[in-house]
Amino acid sequence: MLTRMESDSMGMLEVEKDAYYGVQTLRAKRNFSITGQTMHQELIISLAKLKKAAAITNRSGGMLSSTIANAIIKASDEIIAGKLHNEFIVDAIQGGAGTSANMNANEVIANRAIEILGGEKGDYSIVHPNDHVNMAQSTNDVFPSAGKLAVVTLLPKTIYQLERLDAALMKKSFEFDHIIKMGRTQLQDAVPMRLGQSFHAYSSVIKRDIERLIRVEKTMHTFNMGATAIGSGINVSPIYFDNIAQNVSLVCNDKFYQAEDLFDATQNLDGFVEVSAALKICAVNISKICNDLRLLSSGPKTGLAEINLPAMQNGSSIMPGKVNPVIPEVVSQVAFNIIGNDITITMAAESGQMELNAFEPVLFYKLFESIETLKAAAATLVDNCILGISANEERCSELLNASVGISTALCPHIGYKKSAEIAKESLKTGISVKQLVLEKGLLNSSQLKIILNPIIMTEPQSDLKKMAI
Amino acid sequence: MLTRMESDSMGMLEVEKDAYYGVQTLRAKRNFSITGQTMHQELIISLAKLKKAAAITNRSGGMLSSTIANAIIKASDEIIAGKLHNEFIVDAIQGGAGTSANMNANEVIANRAIEILGGEKGDYSIVHPNDHVNMAQSTNDVFPSAGKLAVVTLLPKTIYQLERLDAALMKKSFEFDHIIKMGRTQLQDAVPMRLGQSFHAYSSVIKRDIERLIRVEKTMHTFNMGATAIGSGINVSPIYFDNIAQNVSLVCNDKFYQAEDLFDATQNLDGFVEVSAALKICAVNISKICNDLRLLSSGPKTGLAEINLPAMQNGSSIMPGKVNPVIPEVVSQVAFNIIGNDITITMAAESGQMELNAFEPVLFYKLFESIETLKAAAATLVDNCILGISANEERCSELLNASVGISTALCPHIGYKKSAEIAKESLKTGISVKQLVLEKGLLNSSQLKIILNPIIMTEPQSDLKKMAI
Amino acid sequence: MLTRMESDSMGMLEVEKDAYYGVQTLRAKRNFSITGQTMHQELIISLAKLKKAAAITNRSGGMLSSTIANAIIKASDEIIAGKLHNEFIVDAIQGGAGTSANMNANEVIANRAIEILGGEKGDYSIVHPNDHVNMAQSTNDVFPSAGKLAVVTLLPKTIYQLERLDAALMKKSFEFDHIIKMGRTQLQDAVPMRLGQSFHAYSSVIKRDIERLIRVEKTMHTFNMGATAIGSGINVSPIYFDNIAQNVSLVCNDKFYQAEDLFDATQNLDGFVEVSAALKICAVNISKICNDLRLLSSGPKTGLAEINLPAMQNGSSIMPGKVNPVIPEVVSQVAFNIIGNDITITMAAESGQMELNAFEPVLFYKLFESIETLKAAAATLVDNCILGISANEERCSELLNASVGISTALCPHIGYKKSAEIAKESLKTGISVKQLVLEKGLLNSSQLKIILNPIIMTEPQSDLKKMAI
Amino acid sequence: MLTRMESDSMGMLEVEKDAYYGVQTLRAKRNFSITGQTMHQELIISLAKLKKAAAITNRSGGMLSSTIANAIIKASDEIIAGKLHNEFIVDAIQGGAGTSANMNANEVIANRAIEILGGEKGDYSIVHPNDHVNMAQSTNDVFPSAGKLAVVTLLPKTIYQLERLDAALMKKSFEFDHIIKMGRTQLQDAVPMRLGQSFHAYSSVIKRDIERLIRVEKTMHTFNMGATAIGSGINVSPIYFDNIAQNVSLVCNDKFYQAEDLFDATQNLDGFVEVSAALKICAVNISKICNDLRLLSSGPKTGLAEINLPAMQNGSSIMPGKVNPVIPEVVSQVAFNIIGNDITITMAAESGQMELNAFEPVLFYKLFESIETLKAAAATLVDNCILGISANEERCSELLNASVGISTALCPHIGYKKSAEIAKESLKTGISVKQLVLEKGLLNSSQLKIILNPIIMTEPQSDLKKMAI
Repeated sequence: MLTRMESDSMGMLEVEKDAYYGVQTLRAKRNFSITGQTMHQELIISLAKLKKAAAITNRSGGMLSSTIANAIIKASDEIIAGKLHNEFIVDAIQGGAGTSANMNANEVIANRAIEILGGEKGDYSIVHPNDHVNMAQSTNDVFPSAGKLAVVTLLPKTIYQLERLDAALMKKSFEFDHIIKMGRTQLQDAVPMRLGQSFHAYSSVIKRDIERLIRVEKTMHTFNMGATAIGSGINVSPIYFDNIAQNVSLVCNDKFYQAEDLFDATQNLDGFVEVSAALKICAVNISKICNDLRLLSSGPKTGLAEINLPAMQNGSSIMPGKVNPVIPEVVSQVAFNIIGNDITITMAAESGQMELNAFEPVLFYKLFESIETLKAAAATLVDNCILGISANEERCSELLNASVGISTALCPHIGYKKSAEIAKESLKTGISVKQLVLEKGLLNSSQLKIILNPIIMTEPQSDLKKMAI
Repeated sequence: MLTRMESDSMGMLEVEKDAYYGVQTLRAKRNFSITGQTMHQELIISLAKLKKAAAITNRSGGMLSSTIANAIIKASDEIIAGKLHNEFIVDAIQGGAGTSANMNANEVIANRAIEILGGEKGDYSIVHPNDHVNMAQSTNDVFPSAGKLAVVTLLPKTIYQLERLDAALMKKSFEFDHIIKMGRTQLQDAVPMRLGQSFHAYSSVIKRDIERLIRVEKTMHTFNMGATAIGSGINVSPIYFDNIAQNVSLVCNDKFYQAEDLFDATQNLDGFVEVSAALKICAVNISKICNDLRLLSSGPKTGLAEINLPAMQNGSSIMPGKVNPVIPEVVSQVAFNIIGNDITITMAAESGQMELNAFEPVLFYKLFESIETLKAAAATLVDNCILGISANEERCSELLNASVGISTALCPHIGYKKSAEIAKESLKTGISVKQLVLEKGLLNSSQLKIILNPIIMTEPQSDLKKMAI
Repeated sequence: MLTRMESDSMGMLEVEKDAYYGVQTLRAKRNFSITGQTMHQELIISLAKLKKAAAITNRSGGMLSSTIANAIIKASDEIIAGKLHNEFIVDAIQGGAGTSANMNANEVIANRAIEILGGEKGDYSIVHPNDHVNMAQSTNDVFPSAGKLAVVTLLPKTIYQLERLDAALMKKSFEFDHIIKMGRTQLQDAVPMRLGQSFHAYSSVIKRDIERLIRVEKTMHTFNMGATAIGSGINVSPIYFDNIAQNVSLVCNDKFYQAEDLFDATQNLDGFVEVSAALKICAVNISKICNDLRLLSSGPKTGLAEINLPAMQNGSSIMPGKVNPVIPEVVSQVAFNIIGNDITITMAAESGQMELNAFEPVLFYKLFESIETLKAAAATLVDNCILGISANEERCSELLNASVGISTALCPHIGYKKSAEIAKESLKTGISVKQLVLEKGLLNSSQLKIILNPIIMTEPQSDLKKMAI
Repeated sequence: MLTRMESDSMGMLEVEKDAYYGVQTLRAKRNFSITGQTMHQELIISLAKLKKAAAITNRSGGMLSSTIANAIIKASDEIIAGKLHNEFIVDAIQGGAGTSANMNANEVIANRAIEILGGEKGDYSIVHPNDHVNMAQSTNDVFPSAGKLAVVTLLPKTIYQLERLDAALMKKSFEFDHIIKMGRTQLQDAVPMRLGQSFHAYSSVIKRDIERLIRVEKTMHTFNMGATAIGSGINVSPIYFDNIAQNVSLVCNDKFYQAEDLFDATQNLDGFVEVSAALKICAVNISKICNDLRLLSSGPKTGLAEINLPAMQNGSSIMPGKVNPVIPEVVSQVAFNIIGNDITITMAAESGQMELNAFEPVLFYKLFESIETLKAAAATLVDNCILGISANEERCSELLNASVGISTALCPHIGYKKSAEIAKESLKTGISVKQLVLEKGLLNSSQLKIILNPIIMTEPQSDLKKMAI
């Protein structure tokens, strides 16, 4: 391996000759061999976008020569385009509040810029990682801001899959709207409803999740660029301070704002905890839906069997013909992971001390995992499950007719107590609720025709109900 | 003990003669002896408010006679006024999705209404718990709606204490705005700042918490009254359905709305999880502030000692003269509890099945605890800590002068590498940064007068900084 | 209100004349108005036991006069016997690492001892809370040790209820051992089993929980008495140091040991986290069992309905005749709470700093809640659910016969692929698996009589299986 | 891309011609595109070990021909040796309770065995994934057992790093045993101790963690091989049933046992939750140690600065000369992740239903991450932090002398109240505790020489202490 020598204030170190990263990255690589995973590529791109915007801003203020600035911008553009990502070698979980991630970006961009300017990698007299690439910046403003840029890029893709999920659920809601079935509370027979209403309820809660995620995504557009080390903006020129947010907005083609209180914005990570919380709530809801799908499709012969999930793969290595609800199962697992991640994120945020929170790396690692796996889970749920669900209309009808839940509709007419007696007698004897009411002369046949009509029971405001009263 | 006999579909049971609760409450009491705590009194009041609004609505539609309705309303008003709360004997954590809580309310109100109408407790032919008090209702709409009413009553009191906290922090921010001190990142000396900026940052994050809590409080005004058992509004008259939300609003003097999708609103508890999440985020932030207060006041002789917390009590049973940061300590403990409660609430919400979530009781129990203890923690933090904090101005100055963090300000002028060398040399030799720069002839004295002025370093936009560049 | 004046190093304060607590307790009461709950009574008793043992030890070493020591012992005995508990007024969640709890005990005991010696409450020249009652102790050894004494008293009662649960499950396992039913994996029809085997599996996992709890209970017998403030045993005489553990053992009639590394034992709370973890694992297992009970008893007409839970109370305020699985529901809620508490306990333990963990009060509060609610949940599960469960033998048989899961037994004889074809054909056509195999001439009737016998399928080692091969 | 056609009961699918995996793996790959991570390689190896042991057992019982069995064994050995791992393409988080993972193994081994026997990949008439490789097995016994084999391989490596950590801490404990410093409780000056005692306490708690992990590792040696689908051992011959555990033991060169209740062992995952709990407790303890290291090394000029952590990398991209405690920071982040994983694992375990828990894949994914990152964290903590720690003896002494904590030692001699007065006066006036006691004539000089000697205060049983009394 050919190497070059680099030095920092710790001393000299051999760096692989062709490497774009430098001595500080290499030290970090050696210090943090934790997950074996490197930074999320969207975080890498976000760092490059900020470096580009900083160079533009420093150039416009005259703090950085056009030559150097342009080389930095060009190098950053390459990273934004997806190049050189394998030069980002530091572990996703790292000490130092992201300094290693930031220096990895500074060094890669500096060395690429040096190359662009005809120099040799490592000759930081041409472009310096700290003095030029990191000019007017600190890890403490760049790293959390890069996290926000990444969230803003990743989250809409998750929202898009949730919108597809909502649409798929609505489609099924219409498709199944005519199917009468028994509602269940606490897993016990309750009162009639339509299968379409089940799916409509699922779509309603997912719509609320989408709104939540859209809202928190917006909060991510306020960052602390210009704060540098602790929020005081030390080493930042007024020109840079006034223009960096706008230049980031231009680079990202998306509007970003500088926080009013930069000390606050540098030390507090509550915005990310709020994103995680919104993801967690969605995880709760989507897992509940998946639990329902597994219950409703249980069987085929010893379960509820009101719906069929599409068969996606053999369910068992030993039991022939078995088909399992594998998609809802994987979605719930993703949900459990997101809920666990929320705790990690919460603890990381709570552990900040004074002017900085040093635990951003694990927070980002887990937050991006939550965003990405929720996206993947929603996508497979739509494509490999929801859209292929069919209903067992006959089975729904059969179960409905066997049950005594319609006796609830008697209460306003004969009282709770008598209704309960009839329900119990029907369950015990197998004689239908209707017949028992008739036998006891409590209501007549034409009354019961309306009162015990399950379709009427499924809507609060049906005309028939109005008639019945 | 004198008793009366009551029966339900399980059979007969002796109830204490004077008790307002009845047979179903008593069974629940026996089934659930879990926490030894009964329902939160605000939940009791909320149930009574809903019962009152339902009676008004049923009366106006002619479903309930004025005589019975008025007695129910009167009985409910007594409970709203704080009476009869000791008749609510069911455990805070109960099975049955809150049916026991709802029936406890139905029975107490029925028996009190019976009394008002001149009857004997237990004579449900006069006023019936199910047929009259619970008319057009189900536990499944009343209980979650009562939970929302309770949140809407309790949460503003917590918000009020947080507003007081914000004001107290702002007060200290102004008071300490002239005190220059060393900022710290990762517990290591960073760059200068003003103590007022520390407290301003604390107030900024609390302001964000207040906004979050105000926002989630608003979401609690949409409920599922009229949904009855599963969302279909079975046994609800159109008149009731159309007017119940408005009548609840009148009773509560606060606007409530009926959810558009009542199936969704009956089975999903995500709204409560969102409230818990907002509380949790506030817990994270307030605990971080308290950790800082403990760090900054550490000492008196072997710690940072930049501020003094008011001495509230002896700190030790063995160490004389010791004073501990007891208020921040109790606040962090409350935060840990709220974070744990958030997991309980999350799991309860995730466990809903089909048309109902049976786990609301534990969710409410923990949610109310989170709301109430956060209120108490914020209150004691304001009154027994923040307002009494004093600054050790001399100590701040002494530490600032001893440190080399001001060398950061050299970077734009002599570069990162040279600045690092000077910082290290200063730390090693004890010679001041200024003197070293002068000795090495890197900058002259008049330049350094501005560049190394710590006050200038504390603001991004100071005029002096503009001059300096 | 008559009052007396008391002073501490904070100054003077009026204390209610009749109060046994004193000035320090009163300050704590005012500082911490958090939960409205006071300390667990077992924690109060444990404090008194330690005070008694300390007095005995100090007396035997001559550090404390017999007169004072005996009065302290007598006062402590009264508290151990359940008296004066209402004098313990400090909040369960308190700052100060338990100093307020310890001083509450010191003051109550001192004042009661003063009374015993004929003095007036508040005349600490007779018996002093710090110098006499707290002699050779610090909150930092007394409070965590008292927590351990309390766990050691409370946990066996929980274990006892779990043993009853195990016994009840075993009883049902025998009772249902002859009932053949369909096993289910992933809620889909799997292969035959016996209902007794279900309950046996439940008892097996509860047995493991019992073992875990017994094991962690043992770890609680090592404490840090003698460590005083930080583990160095400052202000402790050698005689006290050598005898305190033995005297605590005598007072408690249970063997306690002094930790080898008292610094470690004073600052680390991992032992309590381990107790919480064992409780949490039990919560996981018991909740899973309860979920199963709710699934197996779902219905009565639209669910699995293989078993009946005893009807404990009306299930609904609106749906007549509905009976819900209220006991399993309350147990799962307790489980969610214990899981949430485990997070609180974990965070409290993680937050210790240097020589002490100041967050013990919330840890104890939640730990005792976990222990006590698990006990209550197990008790109601046994008495109000498990013992009353009956089986629907006919329903089990009907479902078994309808399913095709027995086709798994064909695999070793005709291969997985052919077996799968037959299973699918049977499901589609309704023709039995047996008949299809015969029609296709794959196996003969006498072979199938053994191979498709579901009873044989329920045991790995049945003689019939040996014959079959 | 050249392909071959494969079919399962879902239908036909094109598989890449050179692939060792088959149709079922490919379906799973398409269904679960969740994390982008495949199974942990130790899980792959563990599956291969079980397949090998099963083939040996089936061969010995005559159920499997030697030809096929030997080919399966050879193919398995290749995987155990690290080959073909890139053929394991299914996502780490998958639905189906691990069926996809198991079938991935079955297909790869079958195709490799076919190749060994001279056949073409995909010609399952030679070796069949289900009938031969999976003979007498089900995913439901193989997958959880493979998880246990993996834990048993991975965990000792983590334990080894913790043993190195313990040794490093002990080394420092000896090295620093002569350095007197001030102990701190609640971040406030407490009483004197030796720096070596701090490190000894750290080693003591790590020792306890090691014991815990050793203990839980042992519990992982009991598995459910032979249970097949649900625990009944369907399709398992008595010979296989009686010998599989022993043959796995031989293959693994480690003793494994068959669970007594195989239904329990198939459906319950509490053993894994216990492993996670032990890891979590270690995370709590190691994070607390790291927090202490960051506190004790805070500075260099505005913090405690009693110790120096080795400088591992530049601490800041903007602040020259700054060195941060990056290693303790990364360790705490790992701890937060492990604590979050514990919640995911807990929820996965709680969600099992009846005869199986379908959520094992996410449980394993997170459990292995916890084990591996704890190993990595401990390793970097030892090598890049603990071993390089140096003490600032002078600073320790300076802080000790400035403080008044030694006044605690006065209590047994002049009482708590007077000692408190002296402590307060000393803090206020700056006059030393000793001088104040002398001035007030409370004790004489020779008494104070012993009483106020800080070294004596650091040991409960020192001879000097015995002399002093």
